[in-house]
Amino acid sequence: MSNNTDTVPESYPMNSGDGTNSYTENSYFQKAATNVVKAKIDDVIAEKLDVKKNSSTSESTFRLADLGCSVGPNTFLTMHSHTMQNIIDVVQHKYQSQGLASHMPEFQVFFNDHASNDFNTLFASLPQRRSYFATRVPGSFHDRLFPESSLHFVHSSYALQWLSKLLEELLNKNSAAWNKGRVHYASAPDEVAQAYTDQFAKDITTFLDCRAKELVVGGLMVLIMPGIPNGIHRSSAPTGMIFDFLGLCLIDMAKEGLISEAQVNTFNLPVYVASPKEMTQLVETNGCFNIERMETTQPRARVDGISGQALTKHLRAGMEGIISKHFGTKIIDELFDRFSKKQQESFNLLESKYNVGTQLFMVLKRI
Amino acid sequence: MSNNTDTVPESYPMNSGDGTNSYTENSYFQKAATNVVKAKIDDVIAEKLDVKKNSSTSESTFRLADLGCSVGPNTFLTMHSHTMQNIIDVVQHKYQSQGLASHMPEFQVFFNDHASNDFNTLFASLPQRRSYFATRVPGSFHDRLFPESSLHFVHSSYALQWLSKLLEELLNKNSAAWNKGRVHYASAPDEVAQAYTDQFAKDITTFLDCRAKELVVGGLMVLIMPGIPNGIHRSSAPTGMIFDFLGLCLIDMAKEGLISEAQVNTFNLPVYVASPKEMTQLVETNGCFNIERMETTQPRARVDGISGQALTKHLRAGMEGIISKHFGTKIIDELFDRFSKKQQESFNLLESKYNVGTQLFMVLKRI
Repeated sequence: MSNNTDTVPESYPMNSGDGTNSYTENSYFQKAATNVVKAKIDDVIAEKLDVKKNSSTSESTFRLADLGCSVGPNTFLTMHSHTMQNIIDVVQHKYQSQGLASHMPEFQVFFNDHASNDFNTLFASLPQRRSYFATRVPGSFHDRLFPESSLHFVHSSYALQWLSKLLEELLNKNSAAWNKGRVHYASAPDEVAQAYTDQFAKDITTFLDCRAKELVVGGLMVLIMPGIPNGIHRSSAPTGMIFDFLGLCLIDMAKEGLISEAQVNTFNLPVYVASPKEMTQLVETNGCFNIERMETTQPRARVDGISGQALTKHLRAGMEGIISKHFGTKIIDELFDRFSKKQQESFNLLESKYNVGTQLFMVLKRI
Repeated sequence: MSNNTDTVPESYPMNSGDGTNSYTENSYFQKAATNVVKAKIDDVIAEKLDVKKNSSTSESTFRLADLGCSVGPNTFLTMHSHTMQNIIDVVQHKYQSQGLASHMPEFQVFFNDHASNDFNTLFASLPQRRSYFATRVPGSFHDRLFPESSLHFVHSSYALQWLSKLLEELLNKNSAAWNKGRVHYASAPDEVAQAYTDQFAKDITTFLDCRAKELVVGGLMVLIMPGIPNGIHRSSAPTGMIFDFLGLCLIDMAKEGLISEAQVNTFNLPVYVASPKEMTQLVETNGCFNIERMETTQPRARVDGISGQALTKHLRAGMEGIISKHFGTKIIDELFDRFSKKQQESFNLLESKYNVGTQLFMVLKRI
């Protein structure tokens, strides 16, 4: 059984973590973030998971799903498998501590991501000694992926912020939501933000509908994504500022003729940063889940630990794919060099914002 | 729901089926073979599957596994997904015809193969409209792959003939089982054949032990592999002759200096052709399954339909990987050109053997 604490990759938006000179630093952030989330998940299982109910049914398998688990580089995948192992360790411990060791189920983990993603890497990197049966489920979590009432635990970390599609109003010159000269809604007019909000609401509604069918009654769902505290304006959260910096870099590059202005105007990052309040509303509208936890937290253990280099690497790892697809791969190095400089210029401002919780952590129980 | 009858790839050892001039012919063989096996599987489900029992439990998912499904080219993968869809169609029909439509389960299919195999292709080629949830399970079927009592139906076609490892006695100059100057046991001394038989017995024993744990009581397992009728000598079956031809070609090439004699002596095809009698014995020793069907059949609808070109293509598709790994890729074209000529020279002899059943079809029920 793994006691590895290097489990959940929580630093936003995504880590690269390969063997460069900043690896140790990245790794520090990850471990610190990981321990925070790991402790939360441990608590949730201890308090909220009803293993007595599970052990009284004829069902001898405990099924867990990790949704959207390969949006990122390889080390990210490895950490996802560690996360799932950790969850299983805690569930097993609960069976034992409640005298139900003889009813211990076997564990099956479904790693989900888009069919087009390369999953061979994940399976090649799964630890040989693991206490679960591993499976891959290709497909979008905005659709049904599993049979009815077949899952006991769902985990999704830093995947739900990705919108399922781009928002057409944002590209329409005649719309009040035309997002000219920006690539995100953080500092955009309310109409733009509303277009994002509407799409996010649609996505989450579908997501909850599907998961409500797939989870057994009593099943738990842990969702982790970028978040913004209630009552904070979207432009004041660090995540918003970071996307703004990226947009400003692209606009500068357009002014210098490295890319066209039209390219910038037709590009929008399909990423949403939700507040506890709006997530609560969406969950309550769905009606199939009880909210066991809903909070924004600070994923980093020390706010003074943020470094420009690590931040740039993280952002690049998460965003390179979608930016390359629109602008081509040639501009990537230049863009992130500029981003790195820009956020260094505003380092003090950015750091001062980091006492705001940037991670939304929620636990839902299927009722 | 698919009514496609182009489902099970039964022609031995494996099909290539891409758009060459012999495609139609290959396709004819496949369809003919397919219809034979499809009808058998349909019968088995109709007669042997107890859907009433399934529908009386709280379990709402019917889980199927296709074991070892990617040993072959891409079209092979597509056909595997069709096979599983066909099985589901028949199971669904049975629920309906027995008035159990309201208890219809949802279906989940686990496609299994080695972790190192590329499964991205399979999932990219899965039909959009399918009536099951698709999953990939990486790993060897000589080990546990699924939780206890979690499968209702297991299918494995042309995978179990591959031995899990090579047999060391065959390479030992001091052993009576040293397989000098041959690459298979078909026309080898009994000691060589026994070494193959022993390894096959070990593999099947492990396979049955694992599947006995994974299948629910009443669950069915359909296994299809190359076979040899009881009482026929191993050297007289067409499969044996084909491997002998391949060995003779390699020896000729060694004599001409294209490869070394030592290379031939250290190469053995890890493929076994089992009889109903020995499979029966292995299943009875395991003790967890009732034998519902155990027969050798003729996978081709017309024995006169065999053509050298198609046979060579099929053999190459199945064997190219393992031969290249040992001898390098350079010799492959030459080897199969020679094979094609050799089997044309012996065409009448080979064809005369094809009234012998070359396919072992068995259905086991977990008791």
